[in-house]
Amino acid sequence: MPGVGHKSAQRLAFHILNMRADEVARFIEAVSEAHHKIRRCDICCDLTDADICPVCAGDSRDKSIICVVEDTRDAMAIERTREYNGTYHVLYGAISPLNGIGPEDLTIKELISRLSDGTVKEIIMATNPTVEGEATAIFLSRLIKPLGVEVSRLAYGVPVGADLEYADEITLSKAIEGRKKI
Amino acid sequence: MPGVGHKSAQRLAFHILNMRADEVARFIEAVSEAHHKIRRCDICCDLTDADICPVCAGDSRDKSIICVVEDTRDAMAIERTREYNGTYHVLYGAISPLNGIGPEDLTIKELISRLSDGTVKEIIMATNPTVEGEATAIFLSRLIKPLGVEVSRLAYGVPVGADLEYADEITLSKAIEGRKKI
Repeated sequence: MPGVGHKSAQRLAFHILNMRADEVARFIEAVSEAHHKIRRCDICCDLTDADICPVCAGDSRDKSIICVVEDTRDAMAIERTREYNGTYHVLYGAISPLNGIGPEDLTIKELISRLSDGTVKEIIMATNPTVEGEATAIFLSRLIKPLGVEVSRLAYGVPVGADLEYADEITLSKAIEGRKKI
Repeated sequence: MPGVGHKSAQRLAFHILNMRADEVARFIEAVSEAHHKIRRCDICCDLTDADICPVCAGDSRDKSIICVVEDTRDAMAIERTREYNGTYHVLYGAISPLNGIGPEDLTIKELISRLSDGTVKEIIMATNPTVEGEATAIFLSRLIKPLGVEVSRLAYGVPVGADLEYADEITLSKAIEGRKKI
């Protein structure tokens, strides 16, 4: 399991061995239930325990904007900002020919089908600021723009609270290139 | 000295004690010469060993743009991008009332005097993306804009190569806010 090394694994194993029988039963049930109940939202493909996730089901969310992310954790990170009020679409990865991940391995078909009824006006590409994430954003924008939907990309720049001295060259270039009038 | 702890200091001291007499003499001369010769550029206040630094003296540099930084090291970081072709202005800090640093402690007078002859068309505020750097950028923009010079600020956003999941909330908000059309 990720982040669990030899010693942690041993500690966890002994912890389970020391559990009371009813505790073990509840633990097993919780794992099985989680695995059983958690599925992909019919709309945005995010993980949920219902047919439709709370964001897609929420009346207060702006259904005209979709923020496309690689992973549920990225959607959670954006939720934590409490600034974004649109919906999400989870791709479950990024296009990466080197790792054998093509467009057909992502939930792109599901994304395109969401654009058919004209509700969606803007797609924000919030894939990771990496080579793969950027390639995926560009690939999707080429698919989506002919459908008449606006496509935008997260701003690159210096992170808040950072020190310019330690910023890498490419980020600094992007921050200068993307400078804004005060 | 910064970054030199007890053990490093001892190691350096013994290294000096083990030097030959002529090596010590050259070392002393180098320190003294550096301290003696390095001064502030008459134009941009950056450190230099001449009256005017190579950037300000360079014919190929665009004199209509000034990039305002807090520190020589920040100018060096921007130089490393090889993308910026304007000049700099080094403030030697940022306005920070808590630390007793006011506008009069920075090279603001020198900056304003560079704007008198109309050569400069744009000022890029490349102070650090911190509270103090931001306050300094806003303070300077209020001073400079009435002089008819455009003022811009480095873009905030996600650094290239990062992982969205680990980006802080404020940076993510700024990245969404500053999103760009593809």
